[in-house]
Amino acid sequence: MLRPTGAGGRLPSTLSTPRAAQSYREQFHPLHGCTGPRCSAGGARPAGRQVSAAPRRRGAGLVSLRAHGSLRAGQRRGGLERAGRSERREPARGPGSGAMAAAGGSAKLVEMFYDVVSPYSWLGFEVLCRYRHNWSIELRFRPAFLGGIMKETGNQPPAMVPKRAEYMMKDIKRMAKYYQVPVQIPKDFFGSVIRKSSISAMRFITAVDMTQPQFLEPVSRELWMRIWSRDEDITQPESILAAAGEAGLPSALAQKLLAMTSTPEVKNRLKETTEEALKYGAFGMPAVVAHVNGEAHLFFGSDRLELLGNVIGEKWLGPVPAASKPRM
Amino acid sequence: MLRPTGAGGRLPSTLSTPRAAQSYREQFHPLHGCTGPRCSAGGARPAGRQVSAAPRRRGAGLVSLRAHGSLRAGQRRGGLERAGRSERREPARGPGSGAMAAAGGSAKLVEMFYDVVSPYSWLGFEVLCRYRHNWSIELRFRPAFLGGIMKETGNQPPAMVPKRAEYMMKDIKRMAKYYQVPVQIPKDFFGSVIRKSSISAMRFITAVDMTQPQFLEPVSRELWMRIWSRDEDITQPESILAAAGEAGLPSALAQKLLAMTSTPEVKNRLKETTEEALKYGAFGMPAVVAHVNGEAHLFFGSDRLELLGNVIGEKWLGPVPAASKPRM
Repeated sequence: MLRPTGAGGRLPSTLSTPRAAQSYREQFHPLHGCTGPRCSAGGARPAGRQVSAAPRRRGAGLVSLRAHGSLRAGQRRGGLERAGRSERREPARGPGSGAMAAAGGSAKLVEMFYDVVSPYSWLGFEVLCRYRHNWSIELRFRPAFLGGIMKETGNQPPAMVPKRAEYMMKDIKRMAKYYQVPVQIPKDFFGSVIRKSSISAMRFITAVDMTQPQFLEPVSRELWMRIWSRDEDITQPESILAAAGEAGLPSALAQKLLAMTSTPEVKNRLKETTEEALKYGAFGMPAVVAHVNGEAHLFFGSDRLELLGNVIGEKWLGPVPAASKPRM
Repeated sequence: MLRPTGAGGRLPSTLSTPRAAQSYREQFHPLHGCTGPRCSAGGARPAGRQVSAAPRRRGAGLVSLRAHGSLRAGQRRGGLERAGRSERREPARGPGSGAMAAAGGSAKLVEMFYDVVSPYSWLGFEVLCRYRHNWSIELRFRPAFLGGIMKETGNQPPAMVPKRAEYMMKDIKRMAKYYQVPVQIPKDFFGSVIRKSSISAMRFITAVDMTQPQFLEPVSRELWMRIWSRDEDITQPESILAAAGEAGLPSALAQKLLAMTSTPEVKNRLKETTEEALKYGAFGMPAVVAHVNGEAHLFFGSDRLELLGNVIGEKWLGPVPAASKPRM
C-alpha cells in the first residue's frame, strides 16, 4: 500500500542509485557545509567548550569555526548546484532563541525544527542550505523529536490514511526530483522507522549540536541519506556511528557523543527544543519559524518556502537557486 | 480556537473589506472569465443544448461561447493582475475525461476538482485561471463534493487537530495575501459550514456545469466570495440564488437550475465527478490532475502549482504571473 505506484516522476538515473547518492553527498554537500555554531546550532552554547574536530571531505576547511574561505561562484556539475561562496553573514544574536537577528538590521533569523525521520524535512533542509547564500538570513537548524510533537498535538502522520499515504509517496518522489535531493522511499517504511522511532538518532544529533555544532549539518544529512536514500537503519548504535563516520566525526568522538545520548542533559535538550517548536505552534515537521519585527511566523512543511521568502522580503528563485554573492 | 491569532500576514486594506472584495470581483474576474464549455466544464455535454445566457458584468461579452475578443495586455490596477487577452487556446478534446488535450500537440489537460467549502481550492482556482494565459493548458474545472471524498477515504479535515486549525487560519490569510485573493476567515467556520455541508451549493454548481457551463466559473467564484470573503451563508436556496445573481445568471434561469438540484441527473453527476476524483487518488481538495503522455498526475492542495508546472514542462512565475500572449 505504501509502495509508490509509479505515476509520479522518477529520480533521474544519475541520482537514483546508492553510488550516485554517494556521489551527491561527496560533491554537493561540502559546498553547503555547516559554517559554525552561529549557523546551525540551537539554543545556548556551553561556555568555553572546545571544538575538537571539523567535518571531513573536500571543503572541510570551510566549515571550521574560523575559516570562511571562498569558492568560485556559479559552479555547476551534473545538474546539481555546487556553487556558492562560503563567506556568510553572521549577524549578532540576541539572548534567547526568539531573538531577532540583526546584521546591519537586515538578516532575519530563520529556524528550522526537524527530525530525520521526516523526508519533507530533508527537502526543506537542503533548500534552506542553498538559500542562505541567496537570502539575507541567519539560518539555525533545531533538531527536535517529531514523535513528541505528534503526541502532544494529537496529530496523526498523514500516511495513516491509505490514500494519503499513497499520494505522499508519489509526492515525495516528485518533490525530491524537482528539489534535487536524492530521496528514495524505504521498502518498508512503517517497519523500519515508524515502529522503532527516531529518538536515538535525534538524541545523537542533539549531542552533536551541543558539543560539536559544526557537525550538526553533515551528521543530520548522513542520517537522512541512510533512511531516506539508501533504505538503511538509523535506530541502532552502529547505524548512528556509521552516519557519524560518513560525516567525518572521528570514531572516538562519535563514541563519546553516543554515550552522551543517555544523559539527562541531552535528553532534556531534545525535550526543550521539541517544546519550543510546540510553543511556536508546530504540529508536524519541518516547522520553519521566521522572526520578523519581533514576531514569529510559523511555516509547516517544505512547500511554504516561497511564502517564507515573501514574508521576510526575499525572492523565491525555485528550489535550486543559482548562488549569488552574499550581500553583507 | 479557530480564530486567527494575528501572527500571520494581513490582507492589504485594499482587499480586506467587503467593498474592496466587491471591487475585486467586478474589476478582476471578468478578465479571467469563463470562456465556454471547453474551458471549465466537466464530463460530457448534453447534445444540442442551448446556452441561453452569458455572465454579466464588464467584459461579459468575452465569455460567451463565440466571442473571444482581446483586451490590452499588461493592464494592472490596485495591485491586482487585470491583464490578459481573452483569446485562448481551445484544444480539441478526445472522448472521456482522461483524454489528452492536443492543440498542436502541446496543450496539456489540467483538471481541478474542487468544492467551494475549501478555501485552498479557491486559491488554486484563481491562480490556475491566471495561468491559462501563461501556460499551454486546457483547464477544466470539476465541481465535486469534498464531504464525499473525506468520507470515502477516511480522511479528517486538518482543522480537527486544534494546533493545525490554528495554523491553517494563519496560513490561509498569508497565502490569500500573497496569492491576491480576498479571503476572509468566517467568524464561526464550524457552525456556518462544516455542520451544514456544501452539498446544496455543489449540486447547484453541478447543474450550472451541466447546462450553463459558461457560468460555472463566475457562480463558483460568487459562492466562494460569500463563504470565504463576506462570511455569508451558502447553504440556503436564497443564498445560492443571490450568488447566481451576482454571477449574472438571470433569475428565472437560476430558479430552474435550483429546481434541477433535486433531480437524479444532477445528484448522480456530482457523485460521478466525486468518484472520478477518488479514482485519481484524491483524499481532499483541491485535487489537480494533470494529464501528461497518457498518465494522470495528482496534485493535492494549492501549494503544488510550481511542481505542476515542472511536470507539464511549464515555468512557475509566482501566484500572480504577468499575462502573456497565448502561444496558439
